[in-house]
Amino acid sequence: MENFTNNKRVLQEIYQIVALQENEGDIANYIPELAKVNPERFGVSFLSINNEEFGIGDWQTKFSIQSISKVLSLSLAYKIVGDKIWERVGVEPSGSAFNSLVQLETDNGIPRNPFINGGAMVICDVLISHLKNPINDFLDYVREISYCKDIYFSESVAKSEASAGYRNIALCNFIKSFGNIKNQPNEVLDFYFKMCSIEMSCQELTKTFLFLANSKFRTASGDIVLNLGQAKRINAIMQTCGFYDESGEFSFKVGLPGKSGVGGGIAALYPGKYCIAVWSPKLNKKGNSYRGMKFLELFTSETQLSIF
Amino acid sequence: MENFTNNKRVLQEIYQIVALQENEGDIANYIPELAKVNPERFGVSFLSINNEEFGIGDWQTKFSIQSISKVLSLSLAYKIVGDKIWERVGVEPSGSAFNSLVQLETDNGIPRNPFINGGAMVICDVLISHLKNPINDFLDYVREISYCKDIYFSESVAKSEASAGYRNIALCNFIKSFGNIKNQPNEVLDFYFKMCSIEMSCQELTKTFLFLANSKFRTASGDIVLNLGQAKRINAIMQTCGFYDESGEFSFKVGLPGKSGVGGGIAALYPGKYCIAVWSPKLNKKGNSYRGMKFLELFTSETQLSIF
Amino acid sequence: MENFTNNKRVLQEIYQIVALQENEGDIANYIPELAKVNPERFGVSFLSINNEEFGIGDWQTKFSIQSISKVLSLSLAYKIVGDKIWERVGVEPSGSAFNSLVQLETDNGIPRNPFINGGAMVICDVLISHLKNPINDFLDYVREISYCKDIYFSESVAKSEASAGYRNIALCNFIKSFGNIKNQPNEVLDFYFKMCSIEMSCQELTKTFLFLANSKFRTASGDIVLNLGQAKRINAIMQTCGFYDESGEFSFKVGLPGKSGVGGGIAALYPGKYCIAVWSPKLNKKGNSYRGMKFLELFTSETQLSIF
Amino acid sequence: MENFTNNKRVLQEIYQIVALQENEGDIANYIPELAKVNPERFGVSFLSINNEEFGIGDWQTKFSIQSISKVLSLSLAYKIVGDKIWERVGVEPSGSAFNSLVQLETDNGIPRNPFINGGAMVICDVLISHLKNPINDFLDYVREISYCKDIYFSESVAKSEASAGYRNIALCNFIKSFGNIKNQPNEVLDFYFKMCSIEMSCQELTKTFLFLANSKFRTASGDIVLNLGQAKRINAIMQTCGFYDESGEFSFKVGLPGKSGVGGGIAALYPGKYCIAVWSPKLNKKGNSYRGMKFLELFTSETQLSIF
Repeated sequence: MENFTNNKRVLQEIYQIVALQENEGDIANYIPELAKVNPERFGVSFLSINNEEFGIGDWQTKFSIQSISKVLSLSLAYKIVGDKIWERVGVEPSGSAFNSLVQLETDNGIPRNPFINGGAMVICDVLISHLKNPINDFLDYVREISYCKDIYFSESVAKSEASAGYRNIALCNFIKSFGNIKNQPNEVLDFYFKMCSIEMSCQELTKTFLFLANSKFRTASGDIVLNLGQAKRINAIMQTCGFYDESGEFSFKVGLPGKSGVGGGIAALYPGKYCIAVWSPKLNKKGNSYRGMKFLELFTSETQLSIF
Repeated sequence: MENFTNNKRVLQEIYQIVALQENEGDIANYIPELAKVNPERFGVSFLSINNEEFGIGDWQTKFSIQSISKVLSLSLAYKIVGDKIWERVGVEPSGSAFNSLVQLETDNGIPRNPFINGGAMVICDVLISHLKNPINDFLDYVREISYCKDIYFSESVAKSEASAGYRNIALCNFIKSFGNIKNQPNEVLDFYFKMCSIEMSCQELTKTFLFLANSKFRTASGDIVLNLGQAKRINAIMQTCGFYDESGEFSFKVGLPGKSGVGGGIAALYPGKYCIAVWSPKLNKKGNSYRGMKFLELFTSETQLSIF
Repeated sequence: MENFTNNKRVLQEIYQIVALQENEGDIANYIPELAKVNPERFGVSFLSINNEEFGIGDWQTKFSIQSISKVLSLSLAYKIVGDKIWERVGVEPSGSAFNSLVQLETDNGIPRNPFINGGAMVICDVLISHLKNPINDFLDYVREISYCKDIYFSESVAKSEASAGYRNIALCNFIKSFGNIKNQPNEVLDFYFKMCSIEMSCQELTKTFLFLANSKFRTASGDIVLNLGQAKRINAIMQTCGFYDESGEFSFKVGLPGKSGVGGGIAALYPGKYCIAVWSPKLNKKGNSYRGMKFLELFTSETQLSIF
Repeated sequence: MENFTNNKRVLQEIYQIVALQENEGDIANYIPELAKVNPERFGVSFLSINNEEFGIGDWQTKFSIQSISKVLSLSLAYKIVGDKIWERVGVEPSGSAFNSLVQLETDNGIPRNPFINGGAMVICDVLISHLKNPINDFLDYVREISYCKDIYFSESVAKSEASAGYRNIALCNFIKSFGNIKNQPNEVLDFYFKMCSIEMSCQELTKTFLFLANSKFRTASGDIVLNLGQAKRINAIMQTCGFYDESGEFSFKVGLPGKSGVGGGIAALYPGKYCIAVWSPKLNKKGNSYRGMKFLELFTSETQLSIF
């Protein structure tokens, strides 16, 4: 409780500091719909495993969570398929975007991890094979683990991504040519683009990620989502692969498992302690939220609440 | 104290379990001297930040620590040069060994992290530029932080590595061609091969790595080695890059910052809690100690002492 | 005339020799329709620029010319667009199939030459932009330059290729993502698969390629197809890029500009002298007709009719 | 004879045209000694297989032939070892400089062709294994085939290259690590740098390359150098691999087998007809003589003396 009071104070102070500094970077512009967002939006939400919650700024405004959703699809596929999933996707960082297609070639179509686009597509393919109404069943799963009913994807963003997604179409068909996509590429891409277009607020993100931070987490029906070992594994993958080319940098500066999206959101967590989500649309050169990275770096430095 | 008693029991049990299982893999054979080691050697050492120490098997037998020494050279270079060091070497995982030369090409001779061979050579180059008697001064530094006087490198192993090290010679000259090695490649390689030939026991390794686990660590002269932020950063790099192509796997299965060497040693640590070192010469396909990986996986699963 | 008598004799002799030797290699099996062809088919056609013609074996049986058609599409696009075409596709050999996607990445979507799949797709894209009824207009062009009316593509082969062509779909969308495909990838691929499914006999192939060997060639309407400089350029590209990974080997052993297809056909020519076409479905490891390569090597060695 | 008169006239005219145009590009500056050459030097030498000779400008001034020497070392190694040489070096174009190290990796240390640096080093290694006094014996061979006694290498250029040759040192050790260099890398590099530092005039170059153009060529002692098939093969490799990344472009624009060097020289030939050599030190972006390329393009266009 005392800690929470202190954390609240620190969150407020750092929010003020970052809000006053120049807001550098650019909004993702390759997805026309995303380019329409107000670049000055800035929100932070904090939720401890004891359900102490604190938010500031635009913490209750929904935005496109984009790649953050890949943690959720991974968790559902892992829950359904178990450790067999690692036969179709690796757990190693990918080095660099530049190499992704070469690596698929040398790795025979097995993406290096579930958070690079190719890996996320393989996970989507797994879900399509196991879910009756893939995108609806997936949304229901997210609603259940987050205790938030009001979760949808944006049709316009999904369409916008599909219309500009030639590189993703290339990637999906390339993996299919190795046999590591079982369904039709079009179906997989449709699910993938919709999943990436899910919209949540920072508050909803912290509630959604709580099951990875709190080993005692139960859904409303009393079920656990993943067992402790499984949650630990997903956290480990977020730690090493959650921030594209900047995963090492994030690990180095922030020291928390987390995942970013090109919508400007970041969700991170301290196992056994708390979840935190930040949203600010301008991205640094590596494609991660400029203010989000800055905020989290200052926060873990100040509170010493890093895992290292 | 109670914890320590429990940890001791777990260490003993797991040692017995792993020792009874088949000892798979192969000794590193590309360095003739290393191929002479008895493959059945197996030792474990545990040291808490409260100096509770426990060892089992060949925990006091010296072996070639090889790449584990890269953490030590990095720590000294970081201490001397500070954050400027990141201008010459990155902090991102490298993806795969396969790509190392291509990545140097696209990254203009900046190795992706200080633990891949090229990165360690740049660190050696930094040390040569700042130390009067590079290898001796470096050994003195290791003796000081470990409180162990009896630390040397093996001339025969260093020579053995140099004689077979065409690929490392290639790598060093390649980086030199980009201007990111300042001294003569021959000097850098000489230091590099000697540094990798340092010999320690598991016991000595845990004592040497304690400064990264214990924020209150002081040398005999009362000095701190690195400040808290610096130690945190090195731990983060070990977490993401410490096990070659298997860093994600290690992060995923063991969940501790650590570093392996082809001599069969692994040093790992839990920040704020303990150091642990394991030695068993047979290596898995990724070049990490087969029994070492197994032991640590069982240990963190059993004790829940992982950072995730 | 005397030469022709001699060439006829040599062609007959070499045909007998090659027909008696073991027929090694495998039929292309990734396109289901192609796998149905009788592997023992073997035909040769020779046509001098003085219209002296000689054929042997299955020289009048139609087969799927596959990539040989890329020379024809290039010639039409070059005729229409002129030297501007080299802004969108290079003239350098590609090194190896392995690198094709990496090279597209480093070359910003400009394929290295018009005969690798990506380059041929860019040429198809150019044709679609300039032809009213792309595939029909293209067939009319081929009929005109060959003086052969009976030229069609196989719907079943085109469908068979499309159904298994995930890698080509990937490639086309990848180039589109760089902006070097102007039309929709689906349209480009449709044209590409149909063009590759054109069927000709060896006899028709030599008649079709005559315009590249004979500087005085005219169509029925009295038009030239390409000017001398343009024909020389296409011949040069065939010389350096016509045989995938085996272009150097072909240049080295046969020494003629030529182009192969996975249907087992090869068309080659000696500028100012003759055209020659060979068909035998079994392919060597590099994807070129085993007997076709052998036949041409023996033929140019025996007649000294190589350009080197 | 009549032809020769015409060729002479064309050579003179084109020389005037090119000499009057702007002299673009840069002198090779990575080798300090080469940077000292007067950039306005410009010479051309022509020699028919009937020994009709014509020169213009600085055609009798010696310059550093650099990579042109790789054709000579290849011819000697091929003469000594025969077709076995192709087990250690390929005959395929390399695609691009960029990929050279990756290709060595995927090709297990077999360079793609004898004209890329790695391939030329393997050829040097072969020569060292077979010659008593490698560099002297090699110079004697060149003197014999050229009927020119006054052929030496420049010690200062060789030293200059060695001192800046980190990338070449890297390359040689990398190939050694695959076992495809048999002698010590230092010895191979010493021979390689000296061989590249041979100095010749345009006149001497045409005399030296005559044995590849004239199938009746004999040395003073009456010996043939290579048999017809061997000469044809070397010509074919020059055609596909002689101009680095610009081999396709050269084939396309000039249409002759040839080889360039960063000293600004180009030697080319028309089998059965003539040799031609051009020298102008300024290089285009691909590292080939700017004026040399221009001159040869105009010459073969004007005379129609291209092989295509």
